[in-house]
Amino acid sequence: MSEFKQAIVIRNDLKMGKGKIAAQASHASIGAYVKCLEKHKDWAEDWFDMQKKVVLKVDSVTEIVTLFESIKKELPCVLIKDAGRTQIEPGSITALGIGPAPEEKIDKYTHSLKLL
Amino acid sequence: MSEFKQAIVIRNDLKMGKGKIAAQASHASIGAYVKCLEKHKDWAEDWFDMQKKVVLKVDSVTEIVTLFESIKKELPCVLIKDAGRTQIEPGSITALGIGPAPEEKIDKYTHSLKLL
Repeated sequence: MSEFKQAIVIRNDLKMGKGKIAAQASHASIGAYVKCLEKHKDWAEDWFDMQKKVVLKVDSVTEIVTLFESIKKELPCVLIKDAGRTQIEPGSITALGIGPAPEEKIDKYTHSLKLL
Repeated sequence: MSEFKQAIVIRNDLKMGKGKIAAQASHASIGAYVKCLEKHKDWAEDWFDMQKKVVLKVDSVTEIVTLFESIKKELPCVLIKDAGRTQIEPGSITALGIGPAPEEKIDKYTHSLKLL
C-alpha cells in the first residue's frame, strides 16, 4: 500500500520572513487538501491521521509555474498568489501545494527539489 | 458583519528552521480548519475565500498550553505535537491553530502576542 504525503513548495527567491512563509505554506496546504477531498477523497482520508508533509523550495517564479503546469493534470494541486499586504508585491506567486497523494506520484515531479 | 481569520501560534523557543515551521503551521492550520468545519461550518465557509491568516509566536511550552486551555472552550483550536523525526525531541508541542473565527473573538486571547 502506498504511503501518502503532501508536498509544499515555497519560492525561496522572494526572501520572505518565517511568519510569511508559514502563512503561505498554510494556504497551500489547505488549498491542496480541499482539492484532494473533491477528487480523491480516499487519498485525503488515508493521509489525514499522520499528515506527512514535506516542505521544498524553488528559486524562481518560472520554476514554480512550470512545476504546477506539469503536475496539475495528474495530481490535486494549487498555486498560491499572495494578497500582498506585507513584504512582497501584490499578486506574487509564493507557494504550491501538492496532494496529499501517493508518495511516488509526488516524487516523480519533485525529486530534484531541495528541502526548504 | 465580523471578519474571520485564523491564528497560528508557533513556539519560537524551539528554534525550528523555516521549513519545519512551515510544516507545523500547516498541521495547525488544517487541524483547526477541520475542527471549525465540524462546529461552526458557517465560520469556515465565510473565511475560506480570503483565508486571512496571522502567524504569532510564544516563547515557552507553558505559554502555548495555557493559551490552548483558555481558548478551547470557546473556539475551535488544535494543539500540534510533532512526530519528531527531525530537529526537535519527539512529542514536542510545536504549534497551536485557532479558528477560523470572528477576529475579535480570537484577538481577545491573542492581543498580547507578537507576529512571528
